[in-house]
Amino acid sequence: MPAARPIITFTTDFGLADAYVAEMKASVLRHCPEATLVDITHQISPQDVLAGSIALERAVSAFMGGTIHVAVVDPGVGTDRKLLVAHVHGQTVLAPDNGLITWAYRRLNPISTHELLWRPTEETSKTFHGRDILAPVAGLIGAGKGDLVPTRRLDRPVLLDVDIARSLDEAQVIHIDHFGNLTTNVPEELLTSETYVREIGKVRGTYSDVETGEPVVLVGSSGLLEIAVRNQHAATQLDLAVGSKVFFRS
Amino acid sequence: MPAARPIITFTTDFGLADAYVAEMKASVLRHCPEATLVDITHQISPQDVLAGSIALERAVSAFMGGTIHVAVVDPGVGTDRKLLVAHVHGQTVLAPDNGLITWAYRRLNPISTHELLWRPTEETSKTFHGRDILAPVAGLIGAGKGDLVPTRRLDRPVLLDVDIARSLDEAQVIHIDHFGNLTTNVPEELLTSETYVREIGKVRGTYSDVETGEPVVLVGSSGLLEIAVRNQHAATQLDLAVGSKVFFRS
Amino acid sequence: MPAARPIITFTTDFGLADAYVAEMKASVLRHCPEATLVDITHQISPQDVLAGSIALERAVSAFMGGTIHVAVVDPGVGTDRKLLVAHVHGQTVLAPDNGLITWAYRRLNPISTHELLWRPTEETSKTFHGRDILAPVAGLIGAGKGDLVPTRRLDRPVLLDVDIARSLDEAQVIHIDHFGNLTTNVPEELLTSETYVREIGKVRGTYSDVETGEPVVLVGSSGLLEIAVRNQHAATQLDLAVGSKVFFRS
Repeated sequence: MPAARPIITFTTDFGLADAYVAEMKASVLRHCPEATLVDITHQISPQDVLAGSIALERAVSAFMGGTIHVAVVDPGVGTDRKLLVAHVHGQTVLAPDNGLITWAYRRLNPISTHELLWRPTEETSKTFHGRDILAPVAGLIGAGKGDLVPTRRLDRPVLLDVDIARSLDEAQVIHIDHFGNLTTNVPEELLTSETYVREIGKVRGTYSDVETGEPVVLVGSSGLLEIAVRNQHAATQLDLAVGSKVFFRS
Repeated sequence: MPAARPIITFTTDFGLADAYVAEMKASVLRHCPEATLVDITHQISPQDVLAGSIALERAVSAFMGGTIHVAVVDPGVGTDRKLLVAHVHGQTVLAPDNGLITWAYRRLNPISTHELLWRPTEETSKTFHGRDILAPVAGLIGAGKGDLVPTRRLDRPVLLDVDIARSLDEAQVIHIDHFGNLTTNVPEELLTSETYVREIGKVRGTYSDVETGEPVVLVGSSGLLEIAVRNQHAATQLDLAVGSKVFFRS
Repeated sequence: MPAARPIITFTTDFGLADAYVAEMKASVLRHCPEATLVDITHQISPQDVLAGSIALERAVSAFMGGTIHVAVVDPGVGTDRKLLVAHVHGQTVLAPDNGLITWAYRRLNPISTHELLWRPTEETSKTFHGRDILAPVAGLIGAGKGDLVPTRRLDRPVLLDVDIARSLDEAQVIHIDHFGNLTTNVPEELLTSETYVREIGKVRGTYSDVETGEPVVLVGSSGLLEIAVRNQHAATQLDLAVGSKVFFRS
């Protein structure tokens, strides 16, 4: 039985200046008028699949069983790239099979993946599968009609190279947030009370454990090592970018 | 009988930094607490009625019968410009009568237009009719109380000069989207497999029919001729702007 | 008895590029799946408590009894700053006790304030109390379980220095909106038909009472004296900023 008001989320690189996001929402509501619609973000940089992947993992981690996530960062629309259905934490993810699932695949377990075979009966644009395929499928699933959506197993979805650090040697910056804070790929489990990030310091509890303008490392709200500068923009202050290596001192 | 959960959409040039959009939503929810609220966009450039008009047409094309659209790009607020109620595709549009209805009027048929005569009983601001008149009316209509809203026929709404091209000689750029893709006023019906845009090429099916960085023309997701550069920002690459003529080669 | 569909609003400096806002919404929906979620703004400049305070007051003024507002501009997260519950106009405000309540406190009466003592049973991040404390509490209150949320009286919440002008001598700019219009702290009640702002003119009714490009003073949609330039960006044209004094001529 479907939820009384299923939650359907949206993660895209569409920006907010055009009607594209709303067109997807209309496609969802057409099939599932009771849905609660939640925007994750639409400000992924155009075609930045890694950033989209990280936002999508955050969405799955935050939401509850039954939630349906539509993610569209899709530079390959119109090519033969597949469309993906993933099941993880009792939730469903719909996305192009281009690596968008990477960060959820790395961090969340178990996750199963299928190829989405559903195509609408009416004519479909060749440039907007988010509106014409993924959103209607989200609406159908939300309305409890997921059995109308044919899929087949896809054991090896496309994944980006980025991965969770298995040792501090593999540490790198994977995301810069709105405040300029830097998320790394280092999970909390790799840290001890002695872990020391070179040129910054030991792992602290929160931003205010240092003075304003001072750099600080801590476990961020996503459970990963984060580098910040208190009340300032760390990426700018420390001249770090996505892909920058993070060095530790023993 | 009104829909159980009527959809009410918002298209404005208010931006997202202030509470203005939320103030309009409060005015809707006061009359229609069950409404599903959908943002089309609030990032129309200040007072860009043409861009608002195109977003509004996209909204009407995407949504279903019963949907109510509130559009506010209103440089003439406080003057004697009229307020408009339009009926199209079983949907209702509420907007200032300043040309915002233009692109829906040109592309969608049949459309009927009335002047909105409703004024609230409480005092109304002279600077925010979106919040004080249009949004409450949307809420009343959503709540099935549209008969409380007096109107009178308005056969000639204000329209902008821009129109659908009736021949390729009239082709021009009417919109640049978030990705830099250029929408023209050329409908699919004017195109043949031989149509060739000067300095770009023949009409293709999708972006990936050319190499990354190459320009391409295709029928966009709105059914109009679109000019793009694969995975790049066409407006910048090709130095085209809204109003630029598009030239064809026979 | 809680509302069938309680309205819960969000005012933050999180921006829209990350999943943070959605993470808060998930925390609300977990406790209150029927909530209607409304964004006030997420584009408060990072750590600009005054701007957040003004947006929050606008939200309370616009919404109806029963609405719950979550506001997070929280440079002191992780310090011993308190968390606040305010009751005003039959609505509930949840925010850090760092001055965010200031403008609602100054303008709206009566308002009562309490310290929020609720902490979740599961582990809480030290950097994201909006998601881990304020949003779940909003969800609990929305679901009619406010009695699970312990509080104690807090008679003197932290307030910023800014206040409503009690005379024209105290007039200053407190906010610049998306259009560049300047909101002052001067309430309508201080104005007469003879009030004259130096270098601008008498108080008018609306923007169109002057020519395009001309400055104008009027009572804005928030009931405060506003300085605008018709169809232009007043803050830039007049070189005024938040904190600028406004001078009058007798």
